[in-house]
Formats: sequence, structure tokens, C-alpha cells
Amino acid sequence: MTLDAHITRLIPYADDSDFSLANLPYGIYSTASKTRRVGVAIGEGILDMAQLYELDLFNDIDTLAENVFDKTTLNDFIKTGSATWTLVRKKIIQVLTLPEQTIQKNITRLFDLQSTATMHLPVQIFNYTDFYSSEAHATHVGKLFRPHGEPLLPNWKHLPVAYHGRASSITLSGSMVTRPQGQYLKENAPVFGLTQELDFELELGYIVGRENQLGHPIAIAEANEYVFGAVILNDWSARDIQRWEYQPLGPFLGKNFATSISPWVVTMEALKPFRVDLLSTQSPAVLDYLKDPRPQVLDLDLHVAMSIPDHAPVTITRSNSKYLYWTLAQQIAHHTINGCNLLVGDILATGTISGWEEASCGSLLEMTHNGSRPLTIADQKRTYLQDGDGITMLCNGRRPGINLGFGPLMNKIVANPYTPYTSI
Amino acid sequence: MTLDAHITRLIPYADDSDFSLANLPYGIYSTASKTRRVGVAIGEGILDMAQLYELDLFNDIDTLAENVFDKTTLNDFIKTGSATWTLVRKKIIQVLTLPEQTIQKNITRLFDLQSTATMHLPVQIFNYTDFYSSEAHATHVGKLFRPHGEPLLPNWKHLPVAYHGRASSITLSGSMVTRPQGQYLKENAPVFGLTQELDFELELGYIVGRENQLGHPIAIAEANEYVFGAVILNDWSARDIQRWEYQPLGPFLGKNFATSISPWVVTMEALKPFRVDLLSTQSPAVLDYLKDPRPQVLDLDLHVAMSIPDHAPVTITRSNSKYLYWTLAQQIAHHTINGCNLLVGDILATGTISGWEEASCGSLLEMTHNGSRPLTIADQKRTYLQDGDGITMLCNGRRPGINLGFGPLMNKIVANPYTPYTSI
Repeated sequence: MTLDAHITRLIPYADDSDFSLANLPYGIYSTASKTRRVGVAIGEGILDMAQLYELDLFNDIDTLAENVFDKTTLNDFIKTGSATWTLVRKKIIQVLTLPEQTIQKNITRLFDLQSTATMHLPVQIFNYTDFYSSEAHATHVGKLFRPHGEPLLPNWKHLPVAYHGRASSITLSGSMVTRPQGQYLKENAPVFGLTQELDFELELGYIVGRENQLGHPIAIAEANEYVFGAVILNDWSARDIQRWEYQPLGPFLGKNFATSISPWVVTMEALKPFRVDLLSTQSPAVLDYLKDPRPQVLDLDLHVAMSIPDHAPVTITRSNSKYLYWTLAQQIAHHTINGCNLLVGDILATGTISGWEEASCGSLLEMTHNGSRPLTIADQKRTYLQDGDGITMLCNGRRPGINLGFGPLMNKIVANPYTPYTSI
Repeated sequence: MTLDAHITRLIPYADDSDFSLANLPYGIYSTASKTRRVGVAIGEGILDMAQLYELDLFNDIDTLAENVFDKTTLNDFIKTGSATWTLVRKKIIQVLTLPEQTIQKNITRLFDLQSTATMHLPVQIFNYTDFYSSEAHATHVGKLFRPHGEPLLPNWKHLPVAYHGRASSITLSGSMVTRPQGQYLKENAPVFGLTQELDFELELGYIVGRENQLGHPIAIAEANEYVFGAVILNDWSARDIQRWEYQPLGPFLGKNFATSISPWVVTMEALKPFRVDLLSTQSPAVLDYLKDPRPQVLDLDLHVAMSIPDHAPVTITRSNSKYLYWTLAQQIAHHTINGCNLLVGDILATGTISGWEEASCGSLLEMTHNGSRPLTIADQKRTYLQDGDGITMLCNGRRPGINLGFGPLMNKIVANPYTPYTSI
């Protein structure tokens, strides 16, 4: 399939574009003349779904009686359900590939260039759950945080460990991350100050697409139907704050100052070709409610590039989402087995995705062995992040004839304006 | 102050009513003929704020240009700010105490009886944070969960420990709590089944009334201004599930199946007379950002009554919110010191409020020493909750001439309809 010639005259479209016809991710954007609305990325352009709706192209889809694309978040479109997502995807492909009289007339108002658009949070996020599903990551962190115990705690291979993160502080690619202040141990005494161990965590975040009622578990065989799509997610962490606070109730201020996500939601439909079987059989065997009839993960390359001021970014990590131990279906079945209800727009994150090698780790904590082995970035030593440093995360899938990417998740660290801090 | 005679003819009002003129809590209610709206509890009645607004009584308040009472949650009213809350409170007292021609004409449409009203969640809750601020509770739990270590972890007296709870599963008084299923240890092996250790936790939940920007800490001297009011909160817990899952990331499925709150939000203004100094000085001294210029807690009696099928409820706990170690201002200063942003409608819960005595404990875990010492309720033994059992929580403040209550928070346990569970 190739783009219609009318469109490529307006919208540059390279064959290896992240935003190929095989992708068609959804986002929320605005321009100088357009208020926030739903768009679909294609090449270097955006298809304006709110305008497309006005061309009466969706009249035959009952669930689209309202223009759910003329909204400030994707939530209403997502709520129309998976059958509608499929119908809309077909319609978009039709529009982009067949020269049609209607489209031709409206072609300029139907498309915008990404370079002139502002992206916004794609969904209203109600609840944010962060799993801990990479065995390499959990092992690395366990060794560093509990050097005298078994790195993997006894529950880790029996259930997908998770905790509730903070939804309010989720921001978009491009946002500045203010270096947090807080309390941590220094020479065994609690002190107050700027975190000295600011870190990133490389993750994917899944957007919930369907709700279950409170009290009603989602069976594992149906779990994948509850997901709309995925974004790249950076779960920013302050390791010194986290290490001092996290027992017994888990991470709090070490995490909740910022989490950032990439703006385009790549649909589960687009990700289907990248499903592969789990790399290794889970052992010990899991309890029945976690037995995934088709245990699969996504084969997506994940790269992290780090930049220091006045230098080009340097790739420091090459990981892959197929390294995960737990499947998405297992995570959802576990999350809801007690009746916990998921809402459309909730984010379920994978947890840091690390491989076993240093060059495939998803956090500086792991790569630098908690700051004891600095990296060299453009001739400078780095353990944790300094003000002005930037982190860019990329996610790509490659199959013969199929090529897609998520678009970059890029954020910079900025100095905290509240230092020295006087609270009264 | 007494109620206007016109009103008491319609609305029974006892001098010792929870909903006295000193209280005036806000809630969301509907009736057979009225859609959801803001109401204020008074005696056995509800003042219909949406209707009151239509009488042009609020014309002189600029921030009330829109009828923020004709809404399905309190969020829009809360967002008008604390100066407006005070003006509205004055206006309500005026309406209830002065016989006015306008009111007299409209008196029947202005009031409803609580007995004919349905209550709804008072706020849209975006984020739910649960602290762990009772020293007696943390000590009791520490002894039971970590019998071989120090009961209080080293960080506990240096910072108000907290974690993020689940917002989506917060329900109202009257809701049924389905016994959750999940994974827990039995004879040292993980098994799947219905929780055998279903428990309540007696807490207060504070409703955030004002937002801080991401990256901007709230100074402790200003922290109390960020709170609108309080509800009773029951943080339902499955102890067997919690014990197996909670390390290293904290409680998840052991808690997120249900949290319930009482329907009436008692304002911080109404609670002012109940502020008392901290019972004992915090030692060791806290870091500067946690130094509360006026460290106070609320002197409110908290009662828990338990019912078993076919028997009247029996009071099993008499606690008090003045037993808390950390102040609300300290909790807020800590929560935001890293720049974490609070949203209007967020809930900040105290954590279980226990005294040092068994009869003042806020959970069955503590009272029964993890099920080893059963309670006797109406001649039956109880360790943890059984299907059909009910828990009622009450909260009251008493001062000479001032009397207020929150109204009961009452829920019942129901059997899980998904047993035996087949997931595929």
C-alpha cells in the first residue's frame, strides 16, 4: 500500500517513516488555527479526524453518532469499543490510499504538518499502575537495594508485582523535569536537599480501552481486549529519596514528581505483527488464573539516548520489550482478580525494561551500579542525571514490509527554582 | 443559633443532631424528582443548593457567576476557592436562621428529607494518597508483619510515610464490599482463593481544595489552606493477599478492591473548634521543611461498630483522630516537597487511626493479633470479617455548645459470585 499521490504532494512521507500506513497512531493536537482534537500521524503529517468526521465518512458506523474526534482527549473515541476502532482504521486507510473526489476537495483542511502542531496529553489518565515485570531489572535493583538478601523476592515469579503510581504528574514528551528536592540518607542520617540520584526508567505504557465493573475480574483469555494502545513511558526516579522512603509501603516521592509519555498512542491492532512468544517458559508454573493461553510479548526495539549540554545525544541503551517476563494479559488478569476496576484512559506500565547486559539496561541505577561506575557521554563522566541533561526514548518495530515507530519521548532536566528552600 | 421556625416545621432537627448549624457539610444527592446536585445536610434534611442559587442569593459573589451547585460533583464549587466557601457558609446560616420572605415562599422546593434522598460520591476523585500516620497502628502492624525486626522502620519518625492507593474503587457508604479473591501463602506455598483475612481500616480522608502547579511545593505554613473538608474513610484490606504481595513495592491487590467513604464532606471551617495541639512533641525533631508552625490535630471521636447477620451492631473500637503522630500540614508539605501536584478532589487519607489499647485499634489485624485472639460479637467468635458482616464507622466532635458528626459510613461484606473461579 502506498499513500495517495494527492496526499504526498502535501505531506512528506518516507518509506521508513515511524508513522507508516501500518501504524496510524492516535494523538491530541492543536495548531494556531485549530483547537485540540484527535489526529492520526501519517508521515510528517497529521490527519485531522475531527474534520474527516465532518465529511460524513463515518455515517455508517452507529457508534459514531457524535463527533468523538472533536474532543480534547481520546477517551470518548476509545469508549466506542474495539469493533469501532477497527472500522475507523479501515476508513483511514481507505482515505489515505484511494483517490476520492470528496477528499481531494478537502485535502488542505484535512492535513496538518507535525512541525506546526502542538501535541497534548492523549488521554485523561485516571489511574496509573506500574508493574515490575522485567526479571533483569528486578534482579539488578534487588542486588543494589538489598545487597545482603536474595535479589528477587519470593513473590516475584508467582505474581506480576505492581504498585499504584501518581496520575496527576504524568506529562508529555517535551516537558521539562524539575530536579526534585526531598529527604534522603547521607552518612546514615536523614538530610534535606536536591536529589543527587536523578534517574530515568525505560517503559511502555498501555492505555486501557474498556472498563470492567468493580467486583468483576477480567479473565486472562479476554484480557488483551481491554487495551487500546501503547506509548513509551519514562518513570523518572530519584533513587536516594526512593531508597530511604520505600519501606514498607513502596515508592512515593521518589517517583511521583514526574512520569512522561510519548504523544502518539500506537494501537494494539498496529502492534499485532510484533507479537512473539515469551522468550522462556515461566518457571515455576503460575496459578491457574495467571495461565495465559497464548503467552506473548511484543518484539519492539527500545533505545535510550542521553544528551549533555552542548553535545549531540548518545545512545546508551538498546533494550527490547520482548525481554519482559510477564505478559500484558497476565498483568491485567492479576490486577483485576480481586475485583479492582479499570477505567478507560488508565495507564498500565510495564516497569523498567532491561536486558541482562549493561548496554541493555533501562535505568542509570543499573548501568552505573548505583553511581559507582560512571558512563562516559561525549567525554564527560555521568552517573546520574545533571541539570541540562536530556533523555530521549525511541520505540520501533521492524518486520519485512512493516515498519513502525512511536515517535520520540524527549525530556530535559532543569534546575529546581526553589533552592535553597525555606518552607515558612 | 437556632433554625428558623419555618424550616423546623418541615425538617426535624434535634439539638444533638450530627448535622447541626455548626456543621453544614456538603454532599451530592438526588431524589425521585431531582437530578444529582449539591446539598447541605441540616438536621434530618438537605438544603438544595442548586435551588437556593436560583433565588439570586449569591448574586453578590463574583466567583459564583455560574450555578456550581447544579453539578454532579462538588469539584466546581470547591474550585471557587476558600474565600467563596466562607461567603457561601455565611449565606447558608443566614438562610437557615432568619425568616425571609423569599425563602418562605420557596421553602418546600428548597428542602428534601435525607430519608428520601440518594447520596452519591461527593467529588470526582483523581488521586488517592494514603498516609500511615498513627504510631500505634504502624507499631502494631510492624510487630505482626515483621516479628523479628524493629516494629517501626527507621524512616517512620522522619517523614510521614505514604503510598498511592486506587482511586477508581472508592465507593460510598451503603455499597456492598465483595470478598476479594487472590493469591496468598498457605503453609509457605502460594495458593489462589477467597481472602481469609478481610479487614477494615478506620481513617479520615481529606478532600484537596486547591491545586499546586507541578514542580511547586506547598510550604507547610500554607498547607492547611489546600484542604476543603473531610470524610470518614474505610480502607478495606485483605491481609493474607497484602502480606504476600507487599514487598518491595507496597500494598496493591490487598487494598485496591475497595475503599469506602461517608457521603457528607465536613468542611475544615466547621472542624476548626476541634483543633488541638499534638498530644506529644515529635522526637526526633523533623527537618525544616516539616516544621509545622502550629502542629495541631483534630479531636474527633471515632467509633467502629461491627454487625453479624441477624444481630445488632456492637461497638468494637473507640479511637480519636488526635492520636495521629503527623499533622495534615506536614503530610501536605511532604507530599509536595518534590513538586508533586495535588488536584481538587484528590483524597489524602490519614492511614488507620489506632490508639495504644486494643479497644482503640482501627483494624481487626491489630485487635485480634492477626486472627490469633478472636473477638466475641453477639456470642459469636470473629477474627476477620465473614460474608454478611457489616462495619459502621462514626465520627463526632463535641465542644460546649458545639456538636457535629459526619453521618455513618456503613458497608456490608457480600459473598464473591465468581467462586469457584475459572479464568478461561
